[in-house]
Amino acid sequence: MTRQAEVDKGPADTRQRSAATEPSDRSLPIGVFDSGVGGLTVLRALREQLPNERFVYLGDTARLPYGTKSPQSVTRYSLQAADLLVRRRIKYLVIACNTASAVALDALRERYAPLPVMGVIEPGAHAACAASTTRQIGVIATEGTIRGGAYQRAIMARLPDATVIGQPCSLFVALAEEGWTTGPIVEAIARRYLDAMFDQHPAIDTLLLGCTHFPVLTEALGKVLREGVRLVDSAHTTAVALQLALQERGLLRTDSPGSVQLLATDNAERFARVGSLFLGEPFARDDVEIVDLGW
Amino acid sequence: MTRQAEVDKGPADTRQRSAATEPSDRSLPIGVFDSGVGGLTVLRALREQLPNERFVYLGDTARLPYGTKSPQSVTRYSLQAADLLVRRRIKYLVIACNTASAVALDALRERYAPLPVMGVIEPGAHAACAASTTRQIGVIATEGTIRGGAYQRAIMARLPDATVIGQPCSLFVALAEEGWTTGPIVEAIARRYLDAMFDQHPAIDTLLLGCTHFPVLTEALGKVLREGVRLVDSAHTTAVALQLALQERGLLRTDSPGSVQLLATDNAERFARVGSLFLGEPFARDDVEIVDLGW
Repeated sequence: MTRQAEVDKGPADTRQRSAATEPSDRSLPIGVFDSGVGGLTVLRALREQLPNERFVYLGDTARLPYGTKSPQSVTRYSLQAADLLVRRRIKYLVIACNTASAVALDALRERYAPLPVMGVIEPGAHAACAASTTRQIGVIATEGTIRGGAYQRAIMARLPDATVIGQPCSLFVALAEEGWTTGPIVEAIARRYLDAMFDQHPAIDTLLLGCTHFPVLTEALGKVLREGVRLVDSAHTTAVALQLALQERGLLRTDSPGSVQLLATDNAERFARVGSLFLGEPFARDDVEIVDLGW
Repeated sequence: MTRQAEVDKGPADTRQRSAATEPSDRSLPIGVFDSGVGGLTVLRALREQLPNERFVYLGDTARLPYGTKSPQSVTRYSLQAADLLVRRRIKYLVIACNTASAVALDALRERYAPLPVMGVIEPGAHAACAASTTRQIGVIATEGTIRGGAYQRAIMARLPDATVIGQPCSLFVALAEEGWTTGPIVEAIARRYLDAMFDQHPAIDTLLLGCTHFPVLTEALGKVLREGVRLVDSAHTTAVALQLALQERGLLRTDSPGSVQLLATDNAERFARVGSLFLGEPFARDDVEIVDLGW
């Protein structure tokens, strides 16, 4: 059991918080957790923003996707995954999965306090609010994320007079995993999903990508969006938010080369093949450690 | 523990086999198991072919899809699901999932003997061989099914001089679950998957639908297939094979109305909403019993 795992569910006390900012903790890796491969777009953004950090990424490929599972199941899976990362000692936990961020963030924060935990919903909502001048914001995500309403609530909490229009785009996930990221088929599907939303809400000036798979479709989305509509990507804004949070806590690592360790719960071959597109660089099945979450 | 569950892993002896054909067993339901909603196309075909039977269908929606999981995980999930159905007493077990049929059929037969177990691979391969005169057979399925090669092996075992061309069509699953089953987008995707296969193998005269999701796309596939190419559907041929098998064993029920009981491991709302298209008739979340496979 590591220090983080021994901390009980109770609220963090001052001694524990200061312990978490000791210089020795700076060298610990940042734990990144996702249901599978999609979170690798977040890891990619994190590495670009934080090139000196060590990352340990866990994709729960044995149970992906989370977007079609119930909140109870997603919370159970998320706690199991986070347990493993925390046992390996990390200085920060990033939930690089929209579904898990939406339903399990509070449970994770409570369980691992004072370990800081960041999801992708809040940074994405913050960036969308900052980008919009019309306060008409579109959110595209999986069916589960849109139905859950987490982005809509996070945006409305910041801009109570905003209009937020959620549009599920489930096929985008399959397109991204198939590697069909540009061309007429992607554009036709994007038009079918988006045209009605923009026809009904022509003042939308910001489109938030609320699914970790979607950044690889940015080029195709750009071709079908109207002039002046901004694409906002949770991955990039989460990376910026994490950098600020690390600086505030004195946990930012600046003096040594970064690294990435990849873990998955099943099927390293597919994780490497599909995941290479999302991470933006090739990796092999032998680069992936298979772990058992002990169900 | 029911009778079936008490039977050990050893080979079936004669007394057990004759016990399974007692008239009293005829009234027991047929257990049907799938990773989620896709197997409901098989259940639909079974009900059409066997209107007097009782069916209990279990969709493992907590862990779907199986096609991207490793054989070890799929076998473990399949045994857990089958355990539950067998504990509820069934006279036949149908694996309405291509991935589970491909990797877990032997393990299931061994574990539950003398309970008869049928997968969808063998009936599908049999029908494709019967339909083809050129002995050039195309198989479309998920990536996992094609990579596993089970259909290719089952066809070659029957027609050693056949040429079998496997083509993964992963997006078809997402299209079917989205309910986009006809129209230009489906046809464009079908052409992208199929044109190269038919260009390279113009003598293909039979296309086997090796995924339980695909029957709902039959109309769109018919529009892009060349004249004279036959579509063969595992669901229908499995239903015919099951009817013959029940007759042979004296287990066919002909004298009373049939019924369906629906079980899922998670998210009854989505199971009902997406599954209604696959079953071919609407059902509600309250028609679905959520069960726990005890992981």
